[in-house]
Amino acid sequence: MKAYVFPLSPNARKVMAVAAHLDLPLDYQVVDLTKGESRTPEFLKLNPNGKMPVLVDGDFVLWESNAIMQYLASQKPNGLWPDDAQVRADICRWQCWQLSEWMPACGPLLWENLLKAMLQQGSPDGKVVQNAEANFLRTASILDQHLAQRDYLVGDDVTLADLAMAAPLEYAAAAKMPWASHEHLQRWYARIDALPAWQKTKPRMG
Amino acid sequence: MKAYVFPLSPNARKVMAVAAHLDLPLDYQVVDLTKGESRTPEFLKLNPNGKMPVLVDGDFVLWESNAIMQYLASQKPNGLWPDDAQVRADICRWQCWQLSEWMPACGPLLWENLLKAMLQQGSPDGKVVQNAEANFLRTASILDQHLAQRDYLVGDDVTLADLAMAAPLEYAAAAKMPWASHEHLQRWYARIDALPAWQKTKPRMG
Repeated sequence: MKAYVFPLSPNARKVMAVAAHLDLPLDYQVVDLTKGESRTPEFLKLNPNGKMPVLVDGDFVLWESNAIMQYLASQKPNGLWPDDAQVRADICRWQCWQLSEWMPACGPLLWENLLKAMLQQGSPDGKVVQNAEANFLRTASILDQHLAQRDYLVGDDVTLADLAMAAPLEYAAAAKMPWASHEHLQRWYARIDALPAWQKTKPRMG
Repeated sequence: MKAYVFPLSPNARKVMAVAAHLDLPLDYQVVDLTKGESRTPEFLKLNPNGKMPVLVDGDFVLWESNAIMQYLASQKPNGLWPDDAQVRADICRWQCWQLSEWMPACGPLLWENLLKAMLQQGSPDGKVVQNAEANFLRTASILDQHLAQRDYLVGDDVTLADLAMAAPLEYAAAAKMPWASHEHLQRWYARIDALPAWQKTKPRMG
């Protein structure tokens, strides 16, 4: 299987961490977003949205990182994606929430406080940052409260839900995400950060 | 199983259509969003996000409409959610895309052209509408092209992917979604609209 990724991206990380955790060999092809490589006519044939990650398995072309995670985790029995309807729905719930609430909460801070400087797109917009911080605090509180009595998002061990949610937090410090008061969230992230699959796929700048 | 829904909402419709299609009896409890019923302390215990739909099956409380769809469709073998890893990943791809791209494309038009008037929140903002129309056209084109050679989003019959994607289009005319030139999309929607489960769950105002 071939995976098109920009390794610095949280969405690429989600896929790479699953493959690393399950020891699935993927043939990685780097798509450099800073050079517009996801917008070439050739790439748009793979994904008309012009986004990575994309997985290619024979004739099957799959995009949307959460779907790729599930597909990879379907290749063999494992604890990331246990074969139980209720557990899978629970994991899917958090993957959907990661799309509908969590990335919109983290994304503006990633852009304003980190990517703008990296891509030479000017300085952070104070008003945007202020609104983004308020939204981040509100959204992160939901995770923090959920994790108050639990070590992982679903069940007693790491699942796809954790790997999906953890991805943007790699940049929590760099993007100035205001999570100082979310101690349960921080302890949970430290647990994910200690996983060999997380360490192995840690983005390396430059 | 008990389902908390506001039947006019596209996200509620997704769940209700799956239950109708599969003949699953759900005990519906209406959550009137216009009266703030998703924000009561009691409801926030079910879903801390203050959003419906929510499904309650014994001790298991599930939110996020796409996850509820999958859970309902896991109750018995059916064509909406075939038990095949590749097909499920393909369906999940479109459910994720519905969250990440399609609802953000439809939502602003629903708000500006329909909900604002319904909720007496003023008149549409011309500049917001203009941007929303451009984004809708771009996003709907991806669906339209995908449907040019296919009757359904995944495989040869209706799946969860179709029901998820169709939900906001119930309001295409009322919300002035500019889909006149997207003929494949319109033909596909007519196919979904003709399903007994879609007719049975059609929202009735007032």
